Amino acid sequence: MSERTALAGFHAVTARLRNAPHTIESLYYDPARRDARMRQLLERAQQASVRPIAADAARLQALVGPTRHQGVVALCAPLSAMHSLDDVLDRVGPDALLLLLDGITDPRNLGACLRTAEAAGVTAVVLPRDRSASLSSAALKAASGAVESLAVIAVVNLARSMDQIKDAGVRIVGADHAAPCSQYEADLQGPLAWALGAEGHGLRRLTRERCDQLARIPLAGQTESLNVSVAAGICLFETRRRRSGPSPQAGPIG
Amino acid sequence: MSERTALAGFHAVTARLRNAPHTIESLYYDPARRDARMRQLLERAQQASVRPIAADAARLQALVGPTRHQGVVALCAPLSAMHSLDDVLDRVGPDALLLLLDGITDPRNLGACLRTAEAAGVTAVVLPRDRSASLSSAALKAASGAVESLAVIAVVNLARSMDQIKDAGVRIVGADHAAPCSQYEADLQGPLAWALGAEGHGLRRLTRERCDQLARIPLAGQTESLNVSVAAGICLFETRRRRSGPSPQAGPIG
Repeated sequence: MSERTALAGFHAVTARLRNAPHTIESLYYDPARRDARMRQLLERAQQASVRPIAADAARLQALVGPTRHQGVVALCAPLSAMHSLDDVLDRVGPDALLLLLDGITDPRNLGACLRTAEAAGVTAVVLPRDRSASLSSAALKAASGAVESLAVIAVVNLARSMDQIKDAGVRIVGADHAAPCSQYEADLQGPLAWALGAEGHGLRRLTRERCDQLARIPLAGQTESLNVSVAAGICLFETRRRRSGPSPQAGPIG
Repeated sequence: MSERTALAGFHAVTARLRNAPHTIESLYYDPARRDARMRQLLERAQQASVRPIAADAARLQALVGPTRHQGVVALCAPLSAMHSLDDVLDRVGPDALLLLLDGITDPRNLGACLRTAEAAGVTAVVLPRDRSASLSSAALKAASGAVESLAVIAVVNLARSMDQIKDAGVRIVGADHAAPCSQYEADLQGPLAWALGAEGHGLRRLTRERCDQLARIPLAGQTESLNVSVAAGICLFETRRRRSGPSPQAGPIG
């Protein structure tokens, strides 16, 4: 989590223009690109009083490394709303939904998890500072602007933060392929946090032991594990389904 | 889908060694890597009568381009079981589950979709030959060996193949963000195919119009769409949940 972030691509830059334009220090765009998406972005920048700076593709690429930029890059100050875990836990309601990510080191996977979490109504993602991908350009691009409206909290000691989360009345369910019950059978009522580990490795022992319950996603084929963002989507949207009231077991309603 | 495929990484190479070792023309490994995973792989190769060839990291990288290889690459002939759509439709049972991918051009996304599909019990993935990422090394790596036990069928005309699929008694449900009903309400009984389009674009009109039903994944946040492999996971595992019999609406069974 560097001091200054390079956001790349239309999704990420548009979200920042919408949510926190004052944090944008410089907005670079490729003037060779004259399509409707670029026009819309430039209009939005004007409305937000952000002045775009023309830059060629090579300069844009230099700003963001290997990430695809689609002709637009914004250099930004960190969001001031970098919430603390205390802030989040102070606001825990009966429908609270958190996501704990234990050791996701691939930035694209981290970004995809954040995007999925935001879309599922998660309010905060908690991850260990030293064992996670940083919010690099690649992660922010994969997140497609999700971090703009999601608290991402890097903690020093995940196990200790889990104790704090449980003390605040939030149950923690961990995804674990060896769990006796499936996520369809797990208790997902009330304030809840899902804990997911890295592909291949799963949750670390200390993390797993602190979960109130473990649940597995039943896999049908020969694949040994799912991509972590896919697993997050399945667990989080199953939680949303249960919370949205009765749904059919077979066939449509009515 | 080239004549000869370079499989990279432990997942993909192990799956091929297990399922079709006779298709492996050359197996290259990095002798500098001496951990348990490599030992297991070399043992498995020996059991399958495949003789591994030592190669340094640079040579391995040259074989697979930018894909991460983890010290192991297999050059393979195409799987002989490159099923046709006719073959698949001949074997449609009441629990048949297919996936149609309309215009997924990113190889990592395609690979992640294949892996998710296989894990959800999908028997065949159908995609338009000219509008899809090819099964490059990057796609096969992301698929983590899933294509070894999954029919991936590239068709010339997706719309015509959809007619064929429906004629075989398979209902097609398309994921569409503007659909009136959610995937929790959609009719997922009987032989079924999910159709998913590319992120940002969704299903093309001709594809959408051929679906028997459209369903949306209800998104909570500001994110406009999910990664296509995450969307596939949510739709396919919701189908599996319904097929696995009653599950709780709130709280655990019993």
